[in-house]
This record gives sequence, structure tokens and C-alpha cells, in this order.
Amino acid sequence: MNTEVTRQVAALRDTVARLHRELTRYDLVAWTSGNVSARVPGQELMVIKPSGVDYDDLTAETMVVCDLNGTVVDGTSPSSDTAAHAYVYRAMPEVGGVVHTHSGYATAWAARGEAIPCWLTAQADEFGGEIPIGPFALIGGDDIGKGIVSTLSGHRSPAVLMRNHGVFTIGKDARAAVKAAVMCEDVARTAHLARALGQPVPIAPADIDSLYDRYQNVYGQRPPAH
Amino acid sequence: MNTEVTRQVAALRDTVARLHRELTRYDLVAWTSGNVSARVPGQELMVIKPSGVDYDDLTAETMVVCDLNGTVVDGTSPSSDTAAHAYVYRAMPEVGGVVHTHSGYATAWAARGEAIPCWLTAQADEFGGEIPIGPFALIGGDDIGKGIVSTLSGHRSPAVLMRNHGVFTIGKDARAAVKAAVMCEDVARTAHLARALGQPVPIAPADIDSLYDRYQNVYGQRPPAH
Amino acid sequence: MNTEVTRQVAALRDTVARLHRELTRYDLVAWTSGNVSARVPGQELMVIKPSGVDYDDLTAETMVVCDLNGTVVDGTSPSSDTAAHAYVYRAMPEVGGVVHTHSGYATAWAARGEAIPCWLTAQADEFGGEIPIGPFALIGGDDIGKGIVSTLSGHRSPAVLMRNHGVFTIGKDARAAVKAAVMCEDVARTAHLARALGQPVPIAPADIDSLYDRYQNVYGQRPPAH
Amino acid sequence: MNTEVTRQVAALRDTVARLHRELTRYDLVAWTSGNVSARVPGQELMVIKPSGVDYDDLTAETMVVCDLNGTVVDGTSPSSDTAAHAYVYRAMPEVGGVVHTHSGYATAWAARGEAIPCWLTAQADEFGGEIPIGPFALIGGDDIGKGIVSTLSGHRSPAVLMRNHGVFTIGKDARAAVKAAVMCEDVARTAHLARALGQPVPIAPADIDSLYDRYQNVYGQRPPAH
Repeated sequence: MNTEVTRQVAALRDTVARLHRELTRYDLVAWTSGNVSARVPGQELMVIKPSGVDYDDLTAETMVVCDLNGTVVDGTSPSSDTAAHAYVYRAMPEVGGVVHTHSGYATAWAARGEAIPCWLTAQADEFGGEIPIGPFALIGGDDIGKGIVSTLSGHRSPAVLMRNHGVFTIGKDARAAVKAAVMCEDVARTAHLARALGQPVPIAPADIDSLYDRYQNVYGQRPPAH
Repeated sequence: MNTEVTRQVAALRDTVARLHRELTRYDLVAWTSGNVSARVPGQELMVIKPSGVDYDDLTAETMVVCDLNGTVVDGTSPSSDTAAHAYVYRAMPEVGGVVHTHSGYATAWAARGEAIPCWLTAQADEFGGEIPIGPFALIGGDDIGKGIVSTLSGHRSPAVLMRNHGVFTIGKDARAAVKAAVMCEDVARTAHLARALGQPVPIAPADIDSLYDRYQNVYGQRPPAH
Repeated sequence: MNTEVTRQVAALRDTVARLHRELTRYDLVAWTSGNVSARVPGQELMVIKPSGVDYDDLTAETMVVCDLNGTVVDGTSPSSDTAAHAYVYRAMPEVGGVVHTHSGYATAWAARGEAIPCWLTAQADEFGGEIPIGPFALIGGDDIGKGIVSTLSGHRSPAVLMRNHGVFTIGKDARAAVKAAVMCEDVARTAHLARALGQPVPIAPADIDSLYDRYQNVYGQRPPAH
Repeated sequence: MNTEVTRQVAALRDTVARLHRELTRYDLVAWTSGNVSARVPGQELMVIKPSGVDYDDLTAETMVVCDLNGTVVDGTSPSSDTAAHAYVYRAMPEVGGVVHTHSGYATAWAARGEAIPCWLTAQADEFGGEIPIGPFALIGGDDIGKGIVSTLSGHRSPAVLMRNHGVFTIGKDARAAVKAAVMCEDVARTAHLARALGQPVPIAPADIDSLYDRYQNVYGQRPPAH
């Protein structure tokens, strides 16, 4: 690697290691069951969590660098979900970050094979409508990656509920994918609680469109006008 | 601003920044989804959370000062809910603090469009009866503010469940509004759990009145008798 | 007070202040809604939480000393539940500690007016069978105290679910009452979850008796045999 | 004991004391209700939690060393569940660690006497299928131990739900048993949430076999190839 790529990789190792703290802060993971990765911009490389390592022990140094076929370039055994992350980066060039969790409420929808209907303005904002269900897929090849990509391609939602399995989210960078994972569990929980006692009120499709458009375009800190 | 107003604003920046910690302590918010504001007493000014900033990064300095039309007087982009806060301050001169959250149990009632019936003495104490439902309203104009004000005007409850959206609470100051937000989620949760397994017992209206009156007038530390 | 009583009161102020941390650790309370007290052994005195003070701000010094009619002997306004604590100490001389919470799962059973059936060996151990329901009672006189005492007198359970209100627990000292409050919420939660998906299996009364007897007599660290 | 055994025991005291932190971190226990033990490899000895001691006060020094009949060799009163741990070590020589909890969601399944069906790939990975129910058994003799051993012998699952009681897990060492206890509650919770709103989709037995085989053989950090 040249100096600039070395610098980028070092920064992403730190970012990816730190972002795992959001998974534990929001109780999205148990033991070592979730993982975050980031694409190295402009390179055929990604930075990902090592396999089976405690969240407390994750540091920039323990992160693993792989190529986009999941082959280790620098580090120990990468997450057992590396093939799925790699497939997403190969198939979706606009994606800069991928997150995987088994967060409980979202995974409960996944276990029933049910998409989460859009009953909340926060879901319209972040997901642009329902959070879709992906297929059942076994680990060990490209099946999970294919299921993620076929479900999310052309869909507004940055999250997919893989049937009987858990959540994969994507984003322009790793932080955006982590945010989508946090919000996915939050709306999955509220939607669960809402339906547990009756029938939630749907939001009109035009209102969902309006909310999604505004949120994607005007929310958050804007760069100062020039 | 004159010196006294400058001092008031500085104190409220600190208070508002700190009160956001109660939102995270009680798990009322995910990512950057809730906000607290305070009116600057006697001024056409309010202090509010900046937009899209992590709770860990909130400091007195990052708070935004706006006029009561939501125009920034000092700071960066204010919360995307600023228009709603500002509308409440313009319409309800007795209100000194406003809080907004998507806390899960309360928002589940909001997603079904159901007010929370008064099954708990703690709810009678703080809310004086049911916690009402406000209308569905899109963000971006005064619709949310109007829905809050029309629902809470003349109502005992300092909390409104905006349909498909979340909770807004008001108080004589920001701390009182935060307390209402914490108690709203607490009673929303207990009421949910109670009804999940059967039919809760109603509290007689006269008993609700008695509880509300006592709590509003005698609870808490009193100034020493003179 | 003589020196020995002064020493006892100082120690109990510290104990009672610290025990409130268990209420927040186990999420039994929101804002300032629960309280712990201890009888001063051999005296007509009790130590109790001040009214409306944040849990973070509780110290030995802020605790309030009252007589057993609830009149303040040393300190500021005591908990608004002081009359109920005092009534219990007057009526039940074997009780050395009282705790009150609105913990969510237990209060949900209270809102339905349902005792918690004994489906768990941990409940048989600590409560000796079902956790009973007490009457609806308004705050402000002796009604709550009378309801607690009439329900718990001659009952094995150290916890009562006061209808539409919350939990009161008793113990030989404040720590035992806090333990009962923690275990009450724990079994209320598990019993709720169990019944939410079907009909739990009852435990035979003779087995409940056997579990209760063993737990009350042999559990925990024993003093060394002499 | 010879020097090597003394060293092993000292290391296990530290390991067992520390592993209890995972029980509190994942909210698997209330007050003093769960316990971890480890077999001393090659010896007729085990290290176990003392009875009725707060988790905050557990240190390597407070751990109790017992023989495999549960008789104390070094320390104070051991956990009241010592007889069950000891029975497992006597009957299952491959087991190096045992954990017991009353974690809420798993114990709710136990209260209904229902095994947890395999609806999640994470459950297939760790448990190889359903998590089975063991018999109702009273504490105080070998009945609990016999129930654990008869249920888990020849079963893939390292966890058993003892009816009306709670969870026992086993592992090659104490850390593996703790992991099984954490994952048991995690899958019990997600399975509960999934079934609460409908019928989860089963995973085909051949897929469960495939997931279990892969996870047991290739997950986690591998020693470097030589």
C-alpha cells in the first residue's frame, strides 16, 4: 500500500473498532454476535471485525483487513460473516459500510418472515417505508450476500431482515450503516409493541414519500453556506 | 443581549445540555432522535439541541439559541423539531420547557392512535388522567406545533402522543418537561404490560381528581415555612 | 438522643441512602418514584428518603429522621409515602425495613388487581407462594398503611401489590426489604412473560412449602458453628 | 495440593469470579440468584461461587473450592446449587464448567414446560436445535443434577430449561458454559418475541445440522496453521 492508503486503513481500523461500541450501547448484540465493516474508499479492500473476539477487546490493531473476496490481507481470522460483507461491497459500489446484528426485535420479525410495515414517521424518515425480508440463506458461500443485494437493490431501505437470521444494514460509510442498525431495532421494537395490543394506523404512502425526501435531504448539520 | 440575558442564556445552555442525559439514562432516545428546549424567561428566545449531534457530544457551547420563530440567533443548525418547539412557546406563554422523544412504549400507543387510559395512581398524579392523542402531522411547517397546542390547551396532561410519531411534553421549565417525558414512558410501559394480559381496573374519576390535586400542590421539597 | 442512638441513626442514614442504588440498578424506579426506610432498632424512629430528591443526590446527610407517626425529627420534607411506612412500623414490630416502588411488571399485575401465582421456584423460596394484591387506597392518611398491614399480616409474602399503585415490601431490615422488592419485580416479569405465551405449570403446594422452608432456614452465609 | 494444582486453583478462582460479571452485564441474574463453577482439570475438585454474596463483592479469594461431592475444601458456604454442579461433574467427565441462572425469558419457557423450538440460525449454531426442558426437581439432593444430566446426555444443546426453575448450561470450560447461558437467554428472548405476534418459520432439520456442524468446527479464532 502507498502512504495515503496506509493512512486511510489506519483511520478506518480505528473507526470500525469504535463503532462496535454502539452495538453494545444499544444492546444489539450478545457475546460476539454482530459485526461492522468499512470499505477502504477507492481500494479493493475492507476493514472488518475479527472472528469470535469480545467487544471489550476490540482495538484498531485487532481489526482485520481483507480484499473484496474476503481474503485476509492483514490480520487474523475475520468475522465469519466476511463473505457476506465482501459480496455487498463487490455488488453495490455506492456502499461504504455494512453492519450485521441479531438484534432481538428485528430478528423476531425475521423469524416470522415478516417485513416491518411503516407505522412510524421515524421509519419513513430513515427507511422510506417498510423494512423488507430477505431469503433464508446458509452461511459459507455467497448466498447471504446475494440475498442482501437482491433485496436492497432498488429499495429505499438500508436494512434487510434475513429470514430466521438477523439484520444486515448498509450505508455510505460505516457510521451510516451503524445508524441504520440502531434505528432498525428501534422501529422494530416500537412496531412490535404497537401491534401487540391492536392494529397500528398506517401512514399514507404520499406522507411516507414526503417524510423520506425531507429527511434524506435536509436533516442534520449542513456545511456552512459559501 | 444585555448582561442579565447573557447570563440567563449561558445558564440555560448548560441546563438544556445536561437534561439530555436524562433522555439517554431512561432509554427514551435512539441515536439523535429526541430533544429538549427551554424558553429564556421574559425574552423572545429559546435554547435548543443542535440537529443530528450525538448525545455524548452535547455541551453548553453546542446548544443553539433561536428566536420564537425558530430563526437561529447563535449557533449551528437547530433540531429539525425547532418549529414545533417555537410554536408551543408562542402559543402557550406559561410553558418554559418542551421535550420531544420517540420513546418506545409511548410511541406504540401513538402508532395505534390510542390515548393511555388512567390505570395507575402515578399517572393520576402527574397527568391528571389519560394521556391524550394528537393528530398526524407532517414536519416542516406549523402542523406539529398546532397539533400539540390544540391537544394540550385546557388539558391537565403535560404530554401528548402525536399519532404515528412520538411524544411531546411541556412544563413550567425544561426540567419539568423532561420529568413528564420520563414519567410518560414509565406509565405507557406499565399500562402496556397491564393490558397485555387482561383488562386493567379503572380508577374512579373522583379518585383521579384527588390524586392530581394533592400531587400538584404538596409533593416534593417545600420552601421552609416563614 | 444518647450516643448509641446517634451512632445507630448515623449508620442507618448511610445504609438507607446506599440501598436506593439497588432501586436504580434494577430499574425499579423512574425519576424519584421509589423509597426505602429503616426502623431505628428499639426506638420510636425511622430513617427515610427525602421527598422529590434525585437518586444521584441522595447522601446519608439528606436522609430524613421521623418518629413513627411520620413527624420529622431531623431533616427536610420526607417521602410523600412516609405515612404508609410509619403505619407499618407501628403495626408490625418485627419489621425493620420498608420499600416502595412502582416497578413496571409488578405494577402491571397490580393494575389488573391480580395476585402473582407461584410458577417459579424462586418465588416459592422468597415469597412462599403467590404475591398478594392489596386494596386501592388513596394517599394522605392511613389507608395505604392499613392496606399493606391487613394484606401481609399472617401472609408469608414480604411483598404486596397495592391495586392500581405499586409494590410495598417489608423485611427484618432495610436490606431484606430491598431484596424482596428486587425479587418481586424479577418474578413478576418472568411470570408475565410465561403467561404471555400460554399457561404456566403450577407448582404443587407441598413443593412450595418445602422450597420456602429450606430457603428461609438454610440459604446464604451462615455464622460459623460454635 | 501440590504446587501445580495450587496454581490451577488460583487461576480458576480468578476466572470464575470474573465470569460472574457476564451474568450481570447481560442481566441474567437478580440479587444473588445465579452462579458459575469450573472443574479443576484432572482433580476431583471444583471452584464455585459462595452462597448469598453480592456480585459486586465477588473476588478470587471469596470463591469456594469443593470436592465433587460438594464438600467444602477451602472457603465458606458454597452456592446452594453446589450439589447440582457437583453431580454434573461426576456424571459428565467432558464438562469443565457449569452455569445456573433464572434469566427471565428462558425461565418463562421453563415455567410453561416448553422447549424452545429452533427458529434462529444463532440457535442452530450454538444449540444444534431446540433447547430442551428438564423435569421439575426439588433442591437439596441429587434430583436437580440427575434432571440436568438425563436431559443433556446425548443432546447437542449445552443448555437445559429446568421446569418452573431456570437454566443450567454446561461447557468444556466455565467460559463456554457462560457463553451458552448468555446465548440461551438471547435466543429465548427472540423466540418469545417472534411467537408473541404469530407463528415463526421453522428451519429445516438438514439446515440446522449444517449450521451446527460449521459453527462447532470453524467459528472463532483458529490457531495459526503450521
